[in-house]
Amino acid sequence: MLSLKQDNICHKVVLSMDIAKELLAGSRLALSRAITAVENEYETAVEIMQKLYPHTGRAQVIGVTGPPGAGKSTLTDKLAKEYRRQGKTVGIIAVDPTSPFSGGAILGDRIRMNELTLDEGVFIRSMGTRGSLGGLSHKTAEVVKIMDASGKDVVFVETVGVGQSEVDIVKAADTTLVVLVPGLGDDIQAIKAGILEIGDIFAINKADRDGVEKLNIELEMMLDLNQDKLDWRPPIKRTVASQNQGIEELVATVAEHLAHLNQTGALALRRTERTKNELLSMIEDQLGRYVLRHISGSGQFEQLVTQVQQRQKDPYSVVNELLGVILK
Amino acid sequence: MLSLKQDNICHKVVLSMDIAKELLAGSRLALSRAITAVENEYETAVEIMQKLYPHTGRAQVIGVTGPPGAGKSTLTDKLAKEYRRQGKTVGIIAVDPTSPFSGGAILGDRIRMNELTLDEGVFIRSMGTRGSLGGLSHKTAEVVKIMDASGKDVVFVETVGVGQSEVDIVKAADTTLVVLVPGLGDDIQAIKAGILEIGDIFAINKADRDGVEKLNIELEMMLDLNQDKLDWRPPIKRTVASQNQGIEELVATVAEHLAHLNQTGALALRRTERTKNELLSMIEDQLGRYVLRHISGSGQFEQLVTQVQQRQKDPYSVVNELLGVILK
Repeated sequence: MLSLKQDNICHKVVLSMDIAKELLAGSRLALSRAITAVENEYETAVEIMQKLYPHTGRAQVIGVTGPPGAGKSTLTDKLAKEYRRQGKTVGIIAVDPTSPFSGGAILGDRIRMNELTLDEGVFIRSMGTRGSLGGLSHKTAEVVKIMDASGKDVVFVETVGVGQSEVDIVKAADTTLVVLVPGLGDDIQAIKAGILEIGDIFAINKADRDGVEKLNIELEMMLDLNQDKLDWRPPIKRTVASQNQGIEELVATVAEHLAHLNQTGALALRRTERTKNELLSMIEDQLGRYVLRHISGSGQFEQLVTQVQQRQKDPYSVVNELLGVILK
Repeated sequence: MLSLKQDNICHKVVLSMDIAKELLAGSRLALSRAITAVENEYETAVEIMQKLYPHTGRAQVIGVTGPPGAGKSTLTDKLAKEYRRQGKTVGIIAVDPTSPFSGGAILGDRIRMNELTLDEGVFIRSMGTRGSLGGLSHKTAEVVKIMDASGKDVVFVETVGVGQSEVDIVKAADTTLVVLVPGLGDDIQAIKAGILEIGDIFAINKADRDGVEKLNIELEMMLDLNQDKLDWRPPIKRTVASQNQGIEELVATVAEHLAHLNQTGALALRRTERTKNELLSMIEDQLGRYVLRHISGSGQFEQLVTQVQQRQKDPYSVVNELLGVILK
C-alpha cells in the first residue's frame, strides 16, 4: 500500500512537470489541463503556477465588462478576430460570477460555437463561480497568467455583468473596455456611476439603435465630472459588433491606451498595484481556508453559534474569542 | 494631554451608550447614528452592536433583487406602503454594490424623495460600497440588525443588480424576492440561471409589457428543472408596481412563504446558517484588517512585491512566507 501511494505521488509530480513544460512548448492540451488544475484547485496547481510564473508578464490583458445585453461576447469575438488578422495570438476568458452554484461555465462555450474555436491561434475558456468570490477573481488572474505563459499576445477577460465582482475581476487587465448599449432604461445610471472609474475606453455597442446620441452625451457629461484621470480621458467609441462596424478603430484605441500607459510609466504602476492586490487576495484566500479548517468545522464553533443564536453571547465577543485561537 | 485623551474616551463611551439606549427607546436620530457608526466603522460601532444584539431576531427580513431596470425600488416602495396599511413598521436598506468608489449611496435616496420619507413608521437608508465587498454584505447584515433592534416589523434589503455580491447581500433575508421584467433580451438567461437558487418568490414586474407570457413559461420550465427546493415551489407573481397592481397579492405570498418557513422549521435552520455565515464573514473581515495592519503596510511586503514583479520569487512561495508571520 505504501509503495502504491508513493507511486501516485511520484506520478503527480511528474504530471505537473509535464503540464508546465508542455504548455511552455505550445501544447493546447497542457494549457487546458493547467487551467482545469487551477479551477478545481488540484494539488498540482501551485507547482504548475510556480513553474509558469517566470514566463508571465508579456501578454496584453484587456478587460471587457458592461451590463447584460450590451453584446460583450460578440464584441470580444470580433476584437479577437481583428487581433488575429494582425497576426497576434489570443486568449479569451469568459467569467460568469452570476452563476454561483452551477452551469454558468457552459454559457460562454455555447455562444462561442463559431469559427473562432477552430482557430489554433485562439484559446477560449469560460469560468463560473466555484468556491468563494474572492476565489473567482483570484482564479481569473491565475488563468490570465497561464494564457500569458502559454505565449498568447492578447488575453481578454470578459465578464457577464457589472458588479463589484466584475470590478475585482477586471483588475487583472491593463486596459478595461466598458461596453454600453443605448436604451437600457434608467437603472443603467446606477451601473454607469460604478464603472466610470474602471473604464479606460467606453464602447457604445449596437450603435445603430435609437438613443445612441443621448447615451454619448450622458457619458461625456459624466466624464467631465470625473477629475481622477486627467492624464487619460477615456474615449467613447461606437460599434455594431454583429456587423463588424467600428472594430478596427476600437482595436486602434486600445493600442493608443497601451502606448499611453507605457509612455507615462502607468503600466508598471498598474502592474505593481496588481501584484500587491494579488498577493493580498491570495493571503486572504489562504486565511479563509485556514478558518474553514481550524474553526468552522470544530465543535467549539457549533457551540458558539448556538450561544449567539440564543442571545447568550454576542457575535462580536465570539469573533474575538475565535481569532485568538489562530493568530499569533 | 493625557487627561484630555481620557476625557475623549469617556465621552465616546457615554455617547455609544446613549445611541443604543435611545435607539431602543425609539429615537430615529439614534437609529440613523447607529447606522452611520457601522457604515463608517467608528470605534463605537462594536459597542453599539453588542448592546443592540440581544434585541434582534424579531423582524421579518425580505430581500429584493433582480436585474437593472426591473423596477425593484418602485416595487419595494409599494410593498412597504402595503405593510404600512397593515399597521406594520418598515425599514428599507437600499444597497448599491455597483458603486465601489463613490456616489452610490445618493442614488437610493434620490429615488425615495416621496411620501414614504415623511412617514414616521418607515426608515430608509441607502448604502454604497465602502471598503471591501465582504465588508458591504457584512455591513448590510449589521444594518438589518440595527433596524430589527429598533423595532421595525419588516426590513427590506434591496439591491441594485444581480451578481455574486447581491447574492451575498440577500443572504440576510428570510424571504428573497427576485424581480424580473419582460423583454430584457438574451443575457437575462445568464442572470436567471444564477438567481434561480436564491429566489423564494419571483415577481414579474411591468407585467403589462409584451413578453410576459414567454418569461413566465421560461421561469416555470427552469423551476421544473430545479430539484433542490421540493418543499417550496417558488411562486411566480405578476405586478405593475407603478400602478400598484399585484402588490397586495405579493405581500400575501410573502406571508405564505414565512408561514411555510415557520411550519417546516426552515426559518430556524436559515437563521442558524445565517449566524454561522455572519460569524465566518466577520472573522474573515477581521483577518483582512489584520493583514492590512501587519503585512501590507510593512517594508518587508514592499520588498517582496518587487521581487515577485521582477520574477525573482514566485507569488506562491511569498504568500507562504507571509502567512508564517501571522498565523499560530
